[in-house]
Amino acid sequence: MNEFVLNEDRFFDSDLSIRKFARELYNEIKDYPIISPHGHVDPNIFVENKPFPNPTELFISPDHYVFRMLYSQGVPLEELDIPQIGGKRLGKDPKKVWQLFAENYYLFAGTPSGVWLDYEFNKVFGIKEKLNGNNAQKVFDMINEQLQTEEFLPRNLFKKFNIEILTTTDAATDQLINHQQIKQSGWDGRVIPCFRPDGLTNLLNPNWKNELTELGKLTSLDVNNYKNFISALEMRREYFKSMGATSTDHGVISPFTYKLTEGEVNAIFSRALNGKATERDAELFTANMLMEMARMSCDDGLTMQIHAGSNRNHNNVIYEKYGLDKGCDIPQRTDYTENLKELLNAYGNNLNFTVIVFTLDETTYSRELAPLAGHYPAMKLGPAWWFHDSIEGMTRYRQMVTETAGFYNTVGFNDDTRAFVSIPARHDVARRVDANFLGGLVARHIINVDEAKNIIKDLTYNLVKKAYKL
Amino acid sequence: MNEFVLNEDRFFDSDLSIRKFARELYNEIKDYPIISPHGHVDPNIFVENKPFPNPTELFISPDHYVFRMLYSQGVPLEELDIPQIGGKRLGKDPKKVWQLFAENYYLFAGTPSGVWLDYEFNKVFGIKEKLNGNNAQKVFDMINEQLQTEEFLPRNLFKKFNIEILTTTDAATDQLINHQQIKQSGWDGRVIPCFRPDGLTNLLNPNWKNELTELGKLTSLDVNNYKNFISALEMRREYFKSMGATSTDHGVISPFTYKLTEGEVNAIFSRALNGKATERDAELFTANMLMEMARMSCDDGLTMQIHAGSNRNHNNVIYEKYGLDKGCDIPQRTDYTENLKELLNAYGNNLNFTVIVFTLDETTYSRELAPLAGHYPAMKLGPAWWFHDSIEGMTRYRQMVTETAGFYNTVGFNDDTRAFVSIPARHDVARRVDANFLGGLVARHIINVDEAKNIIKDLTYNLVKKAYKL
Amino acid sequence: MNEFVLNEDRFFDSDLSIRKFARELYNEIKDYPIISPHGHVDPNIFVENKPFPNPTELFISPDHYVFRMLYSQGVPLEELDIPQIGGKRLGKDPKKVWQLFAENYYLFAGTPSGVWLDYEFNKVFGIKEKLNGNNAQKVFDMINEQLQTEEFLPRNLFKKFNIEILTTTDAATDQLINHQQIKQSGWDGRVIPCFRPDGLTNLLNPNWKNELTELGKLTSLDVNNYKNFISALEMRREYFKSMGATSTDHGVISPFTYKLTEGEVNAIFSRALNGKATERDAELFTANMLMEMARMSCDDGLTMQIHAGSNRNHNNVIYEKYGLDKGCDIPQRTDYTENLKELLNAYGNNLNFTVIVFTLDETTYSRELAPLAGHYPAMKLGPAWWFHDSIEGMTRYRQMVTETAGFYNTVGFNDDTRAFVSIPARHDVARRVDANFLGGLVARHIINVDEAKNIIKDLTYNLVKKAYKL
Repeated sequence: MNEFVLNEDRFFDSDLSIRKFARELYNEIKDYPIISPHGHVDPNIFVENKPFPNPTELFISPDHYVFRMLYSQGVPLEELDIPQIGGKRLGKDPKKVWQLFAENYYLFAGTPSGVWLDYEFNKVFGIKEKLNGNNAQKVFDMINEQLQTEEFLPRNLFKKFNIEILTTTDAATDQLINHQQIKQSGWDGRVIPCFRPDGLTNLLNPNWKNELTELGKLTSLDVNNYKNFISALEMRREYFKSMGATSTDHGVISPFTYKLTEGEVNAIFSRALNGKATERDAELFTANMLMEMARMSCDDGLTMQIHAGSNRNHNNVIYEKYGLDKGCDIPQRTDYTENLKELLNAYGNNLNFTVIVFTLDETTYSRELAPLAGHYPAMKLGPAWWFHDSIEGMTRYRQMVTETAGFYNTVGFNDDTRAFVSIPARHDVARRVDANFLGGLVARHIINVDEAKNIIKDLTYNLVKKAYKL
Repeated sequence: MNEFVLNEDRFFDSDLSIRKFARELYNEIKDYPIISPHGHVDPNIFVENKPFPNPTELFISPDHYVFRMLYSQGVPLEELDIPQIGGKRLGKDPKKVWQLFAENYYLFAGTPSGVWLDYEFNKVFGIKEKLNGNNAQKVFDMINEQLQTEEFLPRNLFKKFNIEILTTTDAATDQLINHQQIKQSGWDGRVIPCFRPDGLTNLLNPNWKNELTELGKLTSLDVNNYKNFISALEMRREYFKSMGATSTDHGVISPFTYKLTEGEVNAIFSRALNGKATERDAELFTANMLMEMARMSCDDGLTMQIHAGSNRNHNNVIYEKYGLDKGCDIPQRTDYTENLKELLNAYGNNLNFTVIVFTLDETTYSRELAPLAGHYPAMKLGPAWWFHDSIEGMTRYRQMVTETAGFYNTVGFNDDTRAFVSIPARHDVARRVDANFLGGLVARHIINVDEAKNIIKDLTYNLVKKAYKL
Repeated sequence: MNEFVLNEDRFFDSDLSIRKFARELYNEIKDYPIISPHGHVDPNIFVENKPFPNPTELFISPDHYVFRMLYSQGVPLEELDIPQIGGKRLGKDPKKVWQLFAENYYLFAGTPSGVWLDYEFNKVFGIKEKLNGNNAQKVFDMINEQLQTEEFLPRNLFKKFNIEILTTTDAATDQLINHQQIKQSGWDGRVIPCFRPDGLTNLLNPNWKNELTELGKLTSLDVNNYKNFISALEMRREYFKSMGATSTDHGVISPFTYKLTEGEVNAIFSRALNGKATERDAELFTANMLMEMARMSCDDGLTMQIHAGSNRNHNNVIYEKYGLDKGCDIPQRTDYTENLKELLNAYGNNLNFTVIVFTLDETTYSRELAPLAGHYPAMKLGPAWWFHDSIEGMTRYRQMVTETAGFYNTVGFNDDTRAFVSIPARHDVARRVDANFLGGLVARHIINVDEAKNIIKDLTYNLVKKAYKL
């Protein structure tokens, strides 16, 4: 077998007249520090700073991008010992799980997971072979050995990856103890929270009442009335800000925005308190809470993020046994033009407000999102998200967004990952795709190379800091 | 005029660093036998094994891809002597129809029909000129002469085309006499049926009652109650299996799936028997029947196909005079995420079940279908269908599907044609597009050439045999 | 700074095997006269034939493509002195506005506005530097000086731009005095009107009653009943025809078509007269009026255009101060298959009728519009519109439309602009994109170069004249 090396020109157009510019542009920014303004890394790994247990626990068990694909090809989640609800594990031998993964590694050909894993194995762990069933155990051992070393402790990887800022995502009722501990530890890695109140703004959350109780405790307010509920959320936002947060995040099935009257919202809130909220109540309440959150952002300056369009837990069999985030969230059609109208009319002309919108429905890039972001000063477009965080996906994003919104109504890259070790891989792909897209514009004489150099720097670093007020 | 030769590198990217890999990959599989797991060739042509009448009857009258385009440019179907309802013909001189076709042949520039016809004329009939008004009669005669020869009899073409398996599409009440006759004839061409019960599952079918009566006769069951109706369908599936079928097919406007209660379904069934079924009844009944069919597939192992999204017979003027399949079926927006939820929740985790889903709505490739196929073990994606069975269409399919579903949740190519002579042309285009797509991945260092060689073999041959259990 | 020159190969694929054909094809038609069959240039500029006031009034104040982008990045419209409702201006120094524009010119990188402006500065005004904050005043002066010369008077630019026909867009109640004056002036520039009765067919138009009164005056009919209203519209169409019009245009949010019964339409019309029309009334009335307009087109031969899918005046803050066409029209999802069914069934098989359909929803190109245009003889596809009138947008249009509709069910290019000086820039981009698309087909051996040469001539000149009966 040939030695497996990542080609220095990977992902660039094969036509050399584009590739040469892509390479030149990529070289301008490849060593820039990483700003990760949105993601799901567990901050506790930096508190404990303990070795990752083993390759299986690092690459497979926590990564629904990975086990989703194996599951789709008939590998039961039980065989992979994916954590079940309540954390239950079957105690499979990690080496056997790894073997199964390696034998099926060919399934990832042409997927972003394949691209990221190749990078992680090769660049982070120095593996010079493509993973397969034959070398599975050798590769397991090689990675495992390194994981036990000082160099591969989370804080050292943070520095090695050249991360300037890492943002986590945290419930409104999270006390941010990990973030406090990181601060108090004296370690200088900048890990900041992001305020995500979905558990409280979605009345259909089975845990809503508990979260509400917790909110009351944390704020010492009687949150059994809507007005206090709002005040309590404002207090939590203040607390998050004091802990370094610069943004909020809102995951919604639809980006519908609608301000309820005082009477309406009180009625819905009280039905919710009595466990009698309907689906329509929940829709309206979420729409109303997006309005409240936008208003609060105008006041406290936190950048607002809206992630819309994921039909969560589509597969009930998996959900009931394994719970959330197990690869069975399926996108659905999403409309922004009418849904965001009320929010944008109320706050979209406000120069102190930034709302970053994400989609899983690519049809809205050119039809709705680019025209909206190309008009409203408050609105910016989030990068290609989730299933679209990929070479083709990010390329289509630039192709469909740029002509209407330009580059400057976008906000750089989000890795949005819980897989800490994949962060440099993901940012590298994004930088290469942007370099290649700009290289194509230069090669076709749409912009010149000096313009492209300014733009790639802004896309990599400046726009993200500006949009997230970092 | 220059001699007209099909370039050996046709449809490959013009950039040589992609083209060289595309060519290498194409050469790996270009001589593989053809598996045609879904199509509409009339099996009777292999029973009778008579010469095709003439070029006009071979290329124009039966091919709605062809006369649709001529009609769109103002050529009346009467001028082309397209068969009317009941088979009525006007008796136009086939040579005059051919002349009209040839004079308008430029309309097909850049279309898949143009690409297929060029191939058929050149590769199958050895015509070394591009068809036009001047050479129309000469070309007619050249083709016509060959059609009368032994070499061009249907069974011989079947062998010449290197077809390993050809699947037809047959009504649930079809007795499969042609298939029996083929078997009994001793000819070794493998022509197998596919069970398509749309005429019985669609209550709005004007012929529903007749089909039901026929179903009763064939199964000796009193199908005037729903329970027996279901048993009768199960019996027909068994019969199809005994005749070699490995799959079923379901053409629906929406892929809505929903299990009715016994009471509900009996009520709808009895309204249908009384000619009083409403549109909503029909929707619910079809949704219910998809659930039944999936259940039966779990039992009998027939692979299930769902073709959704065609708004049939959009042009009533044409429909009333010419009937079905006359080029006036128009796609419409189709949603899969919610519509398939019930079916996938009930049967999608079943490792014995395969459901292959097709779409005419490309927006669902990346948004819905790839995420669903990239999760549920039972679900696979059918290839780019109908209007998307084209160079750009298949390229977009791979671009939008691969990153989320990988290659291995797809099932190879379907030609889906009634035009028997177009089969090698269509498979050749599909193989070239796949070779080129993979060549692009290799040239951009996303996968290596050895991986690509394995994949192209699987896409051409292995995945289709596996998905259709052939 | 390097001299800024537009590259002769701009916008062509960087791969030379495509570029060489693109260049060859472009050279075939680059000097063809411009046919502009749909647009919004004010005909009065050719009546008065006075110098354009200054660069700011020429490039910024009237062009919502330009100030939309500046606004999205936080530049208040007040700073740009955009005309407010009633024409109110703040009297900002045009040089200061120009400075602000120049400092933000980098925002247009990669956008069609950037491409057009580069062309206009360079090719029309001979500016050999890329506009920026440093050279802003110099460029202002250079342009301004030329604007005062004979050569840059509107009529001379019309000739210089090699415009053969320029179509304006005019309300049904417009008396076309400008068009009369142009005719009477003896100037031989062909500037013709297009009949756009939206003000009368949209019952929600706040000005509807006034327009109706005006319609009555112009036709001397009592238009307070629907029958006379229809007769009056027929008369106005006749008048437009007599003034050179060959087409009508209809801007609708949805392309819903539906013929109301006499009773229904009379009831709605009378509610409208009483100021009591509901939103549903308005929807139905517009749907009905599209049917009436199609019927009239069958009679009088005017080509019908339908522009659907723009959610107008999305930003109420801007609308209330600045009025229509201020960059806050946002596209929304649009369905054609069902909506156009009634119109196409009634008139779509009529060989004397041409209906050209435009969309802002690209998802309908391959799913709905190409299949419809590829079947119905009356229907043709308008070119990539508005946000899609761009290099990538037009490329996607050809990629998604051609395989199903061919080239000959499209109608050439529309510039659709109010920015007169941008006309040659826009046509040049369209010609380059088509040349490049065809060059790609030739390089991949899908068509040959002779076919491509015929097609590019038809796309540039012949198809537009045919579709618009010019």
